Amino acid sequence: MTPDAAVAGTTGPVVGVVGGGQLARMLAEAATPMGVHLRVLAAPSDEGAAEVVPDVVVGRADDPAAVRSLAASVDVVTFDHENVDHGVLEELEAAGVAVRPSLRTLRFSDKAHQRREFAAAGLPVPDFVVLDGTDPAADADAAGAFAERHGGRVVVKASRGGYDGRGVWMLDAASVGGFVTGWSGAPLVLEPRLDLLGEVAVLAARRPSGEVATWPVLETVQVDGMCDEVVLPAPVDASVADRAAEVGAQVAEVTGAVGVLAVELFVVAGATGPEVLVNEIAPRVHNSGHLTIEGCATSQFEQHLRAVLDWPLGPTHPTAPVAVMVNVVGGDAGDPRDRQAAALANVPEAHLHLYGKTSRPGRKIGHVTVLGAERGAVRARAREAADLLAGVGGSTP
Amino acid sequence: MTPDAAVAGTTGPVVGVVGGGQLARMLAEAATPMGVHLRVLAAPSDEGAAEVVPDVVVGRADDPAAVRSLAASVDVVTFDHENVDHGVLEELEAAGVAVRPSLRTLRFSDKAHQRREFAAAGLPVPDFVVLDGTDPAADADAAGAFAERHGGRVVVKASRGGYDGRGVWMLDAASVGGFVTGWSGAPLVLEPRLDLLGEVAVLAARRPSGEVATWPVLETVQVDGMCDEVVLPAPVDASVADRAAEVGAQVAEVTGAVGVLAVELFVVAGATGPEVLVNEIAPRVHNSGHLTIEGCATSQFEQHLRAVLDWPLGPTHPTAPVAVMVNVVGGDAGDPRDRQAAALANVPEAHLHLYGKTSRPGRKIGHVTVLGAERGAVRARAREAADLLAGVGGSTP
Repeated sequence: MTPDAAVAGTTGPVVGVVGGGQLARMLAEAATPMGVHLRVLAAPSDEGAAEVVPDVVVGRADDPAAVRSLAASVDVVTFDHENVDHGVLEELEAAGVAVRPSLRTLRFSDKAHQRREFAAAGLPVPDFVVLDGTDPAADADAAGAFAERHGGRVVVKASRGGYDGRGVWMLDAASVGGFVTGWSGAPLVLEPRLDLLGEVAVLAARRPSGEVATWPVLETVQVDGMCDEVVLPAPVDASVADRAAEVGAQVAEVTGAVGVLAVELFVVAGATGPEVLVNEIAPRVHNSGHLTIEGCATSQFEQHLRAVLDWPLGPTHPTAPVAVMVNVVGGDAGDPRDRQAAALANVPEAHLHLYGKTSRPGRKIGHVTVLGAERGAVRARAREAADLLAGVGGSTP
Repeated sequence: MTPDAAVAGTTGPVVGVVGGGQLARMLAEAATPMGVHLRVLAAPSDEGAAEVVPDVVVGRADDPAAVRSLAASVDVVTFDHENVDHGVLEELEAAGVAVRPSLRTLRFSDKAHQRREFAAAGLPVPDFVVLDGTDPAADADAAGAFAERHGGRVVVKASRGGYDGRGVWMLDAASVGGFVTGWSGAPLVLEPRLDLLGEVAVLAARRPSGEVATWPVLETVQVDGMCDEVVLPAPVDASVADRAAEVGAQVAEVTGAVGVLAVELFVVAGATGPEVLVNEIAPRVHNSGHLTIEGCATSQFEQHLRAVLDWPLGPTHPTAPVAVMVNVVGGDAGDPRDRQAAALANVPEAHLHLYGKTSRPGRKIGHVTVLGAERGAVRARAREAADLLAGVGGSTP
């Protein structure tokens, strides 16, 4: 079906999505029941959405002409990822196109910009220093001094281009100066390596008219800097949960977000008890929120569409005492679509989500969500289903 | 995207669906997360699935060549509706194609065949007589005698071709003879007009290997012979609920069903308490089961795909104390896709399902499901959202 034919039969809103990965795929799953028409700009190499979305426009997200053309044919433009040419978005906004989230919000994907703005707004952030590379010798000195001040344990992050643990380095006082001197990429952000009590995430959704909804705070379990597992509810005191929700709503306001926004938070020991610090944000639907599909009254994907269309937001309460999501990561075992029956034989209550992506080591190719009553048991069941899909572990029948 | 291109990228199972209405559309919604590829045979006039399924083959379900061609390119054939040429299915089964449900099961869509077989199997059915039209005078006599035996109140049903109240007539002893004499269509089934305590439905799913799962019994509210509202749980005694589940599982066995099967039941006063009688069956996903999407641990659409693929079935328990579905029926108010925001403003917790079908009076164009704690309140909320979408009632802002 050609794009024009697809839209000829619709009178509902048309949402354009820049990028065609699994987030676009799951947005499409949410769009269909609501009668919202999705048009996806997908690069030939994108996998995920094209298999299941009839209205795909082939083009690259970093090609201004492709983005301009998509924008001209839809009611609102939103994003599967943030690697989009900012110049064309500025031009579209000036022309009155509904770009949601806006360029102002997308600029917060730059970690240096984010840290400076959040600190200025009084949001809780770790100590940090930005090294912009204009004076390498001064940068190296500043890095050494920062490391000394924090017991020699620092994290160095590229301000742009990192994801899933890439663009992040754990260094010490002896090595950080040399690293900084030898670096020639985007500005760097240095932060202390913190002793974490845990990591949590809070999702918020915001409409252009200002309405904000947050989901219950989630526990995120990271492995090698990549999200591995998410648990609802997070095992934190009510004071931490309340503070996390408050920070999530503040970040939505400070960034002027429209749509869903994910805020990843560190939980650290403070003077009077546990405190949260903003780790990273993503101005879009996010891996930490996948369990909202079955585990909350309104999923992040439906809520994102409602928010960018400026429709009323839905309730976010949990649908079960415990929900656990485990990512399915590619390995050597081939396509997980050969193993659904085995996974369901062992864990019939598992909600499988496969993204239609080629399995490669370290690549997120799907996820599993399990709902239930007891945290330990639900975690074990979700892990078992994900391992069976990924083809790891010894329990495959 | 062409069908071949769509499948080139998949290694998962390919399910062919004959017919492209809203049931195929909702099967597609369930297929995507599971990594199951759907190929839909849709007539040019079919609405619902084509808008949201990339892999659509255009052709009519009653065209043997079109069905044959679909079957040749998929792993299993299933159905959006039963108006399929039986000859081609017989041929496909003889050739070893996985036709699920089988022709044997589909033959139970014929109400005369169904009544005879169910009565022979000892299933609870109303008293009935089949008039096959070979001797109109004898048929008229038999109809009159049947009516006299049942207080002059009879229901006459065409054995084939009826749906949503069509093909059903309420007659009395004075009129039934003339109606039967003047009828020239499919054989007729006569039944008494029963005093109903209520109507319920039970859904069952069965795998080729024999595993059967049933959902909790549902209350169905009919208006003019068409399903209007479905409520979970049904307000019946545990003995009635247990008996309904038992009958549902028996019907699945007697019909040799594979996939989901819906059994609509009358609840009537028996000698020792309420009893159930089989009203109708549908050997497929069914309007009475739409609330399982949000209201049960596994939806009828996911379960149907699991069953026809011979995968393990999922749990069917409710996800909330009460779930209510109300159909959205077309009227004079134009496309419901202009009214989602208004519906969500008043009922933000409503799960909207719009089928992408042109609104025409009396046509099912969508449904709404609401979950909650209290039966009366949830029914009212679901009704309000459905009315707002349909553009009826005075509460539109």
